[in-house]
Amino acid sequence: MTDILISEVGTRDGLQSVDAVMPLEAKKAWIKAEADAGVREIEVGSFVPPKLLPQMADTAEVVAFAKTIPNLTVVTLVPNAKGAENAAKAGVDGMSIPFSMSETHSVNNVRKDHPAMLREIRAVADIAKGAGIHFAVGLSTAFGCTMEGAVSEEQVVRLAVAAAEAGAQEFSLSDTTGYADPQQVRRLTRKVKAEVGDMLSTLHLHNTRGLGLANVVAGLDEGITTFDASLCGLGGCPFAPGASGNIVTEDLVLMLQAMGYNTGIDLEKLLKVRKILENALPGEPLYGFTADAGVPLGMEQRAQLERAA
Amino acid sequence: MTDILISEVGTRDGLQSVDAVMPLEAKKAWIKAEADAGVREIEVGSFVPPKLLPQMADTAEVVAFAKTIPNLTVVTLVPNAKGAENAAKAGVDGMSIPFSMSETHSVNNVRKDHPAMLREIRAVADIAKGAGIHFAVGLSTAFGCTMEGAVSEEQVVRLAVAAAEAGAQEFSLSDTTGYADPQQVRRLTRKVKAEVGDMLSTLHLHNTRGLGLANVVAGLDEGITTFDASLCGLGGCPFAPGASGNIVTEDLVLMLQAMGYNTGIDLEKLLKVRKILENALPGEPLYGFTADAGVPLGMEQRAQLERAA
Repeated sequence: MTDILISEVGTRDGLQSVDAVMPLEAKKAWIKAEADAGVREIEVGSFVPPKLLPQMADTAEVVAFAKTIPNLTVVTLVPNAKGAENAAKAGVDGMSIPFSMSETHSVNNVRKDHPAMLREIRAVADIAKGAGIHFAVGLSTAFGCTMEGAVSEEQVVRLAVAAAEAGAQEFSLSDTTGYADPQQVRRLTRKVKAEVGDMLSTLHLHNTRGLGLANVVAGLDEGITTFDASLCGLGGCPFAPGASGNIVTEDLVLMLQAMGYNTGIDLEKLLKVRKILENALPGEPLYGFTADAGVPLGMEQRAQLERAA
Repeated sequence: MTDILISEVGTRDGLQSVDAVMPLEAKKAWIKAEADAGVREIEVGSFVPPKLLPQMADTAEVVAFAKTIPNLTVVTLVPNAKGAENAAKAGVDGMSIPFSMSETHSVNNVRKDHPAMLREIRAVADIAKGAGIHFAVGLSTAFGCTMEGAVSEEQVVRLAVAAAEAGAQEFSLSDTTGYADPQQVRRLTRKVKAEVGDMLSTLHLHNTRGLGLANVVAGLDEGITTFDASLCGLGGCPFAPGASGNIVTEDLVLMLQAMGYNTGIDLEKLLKVRKILENALPGEPLYGFTADAGVPLGMEQRAQLERAA
């Protein structure tokens, strides 16, 4: 029975896409309830300038609260060395920086070309290492870019190797644009793993075109052990209102458990956490099929058979 | 480059779940437009008593129209020998009967236990053979039942073999309840194929819990070459309003083409067919992610790379 780690990113990736600023107390209740349901890692916020993302302004306080929960790995996003210093000060367990594989996207998004990003990654790595904090690099737009279209797989591999040399300890492949398909996930995962091995542990998949869980299956086939997901699929898609962003944590848990994987998460408990988002974000579209359709009858029995097989 | 056949079932499975009766002219426009987009097989209706399903009352006329379209395989559902006679009279290319693997479901749904169903299958097979019509059996509730819970895989295999002996020419595994997971799809497909070989050609998957396309990936891995799907995911889920039923034809085409499979379907043309449903079924929830998010930039270029790989 393989263990799969689900990393909840709704409190960062989700909330930063929502116009409303979720009150600190609601964030705390959300994090606490997910941890109670068995979620072991949560990306609780982002150390970006509050001017840019007011939704993330209380990240240091959120980290302080999350760190009081036993057995929870508390991670945050950091856009640069300044953010990394703040994350280290706040006492996170892990930090990650997005590194856009599309240089056009990188320049447009953070005004840094690839060499500048690699210098930033080295600076963040030094801060993380000095503070004894785990440091991951998210290879974003790895499956395609809304500006460049297809992104060269060879370039992704080359940049991953360069980021490893700059001090990255772990990688995720990120389908920022919702472009990935299962065949591509398999091939790119294999190519990157061929160079950096199990440092590539994670897939960050979006469900923009409904292919999110299909891409998870492809990732499982290639030995991926961590998947980012967002409760209620929170995280609007920047291209189309009405299309969902992140893959839905609840649906992912259902699929993995039915397949016989161990996530450590109590699905019924997790489904109840949706109530916190419904109350704190009125009018915000919440996604997820399992919440409507319910857990299949005989699921536990089937999962047991699966594990025995 | 593998050819995958997409069988559109919205005109049957979709419309029979919708309260409104779609006018004959709209059905014709839908079928014509899908065929123009490259869809090669459509399940255009069901020969059930109009008292039970008024939405299907005009099936003979729909068949007559669909048969005028060149290179389109016209299939219908038949619940029993009486329906098979009507289908043969109407001049269909193929007919299929649902055979519920859960005996409880079969008795509740069509008042026939498994031996009675096998007698019915033999009768239908004789009619189809006499008329030179292709005859398929849909192994429904194969992945689980809302009444029985888990359904024995050994029972599914045994009943498939019995149905083959009764004259079935082809099989589909049908996830009637939206219970299937990719691991189960792989295993059950393998087990049934071990006994009946390529007579198992088709998966009929629902997206009730968001796992539909993930299950398609599992089916592709096991050599499945035909997938049923419904435009706009039409076909409400009987368990939860708001949850979708069938997998969405448009999203399936996107995924398969991105993976390098040949479906023969023009996706942009197919997306435009949604307009017919929007107009003919006002207020009906229509599903599908690709319609909102659009086709990825550089998709064709990527698909070409995929096919070359």
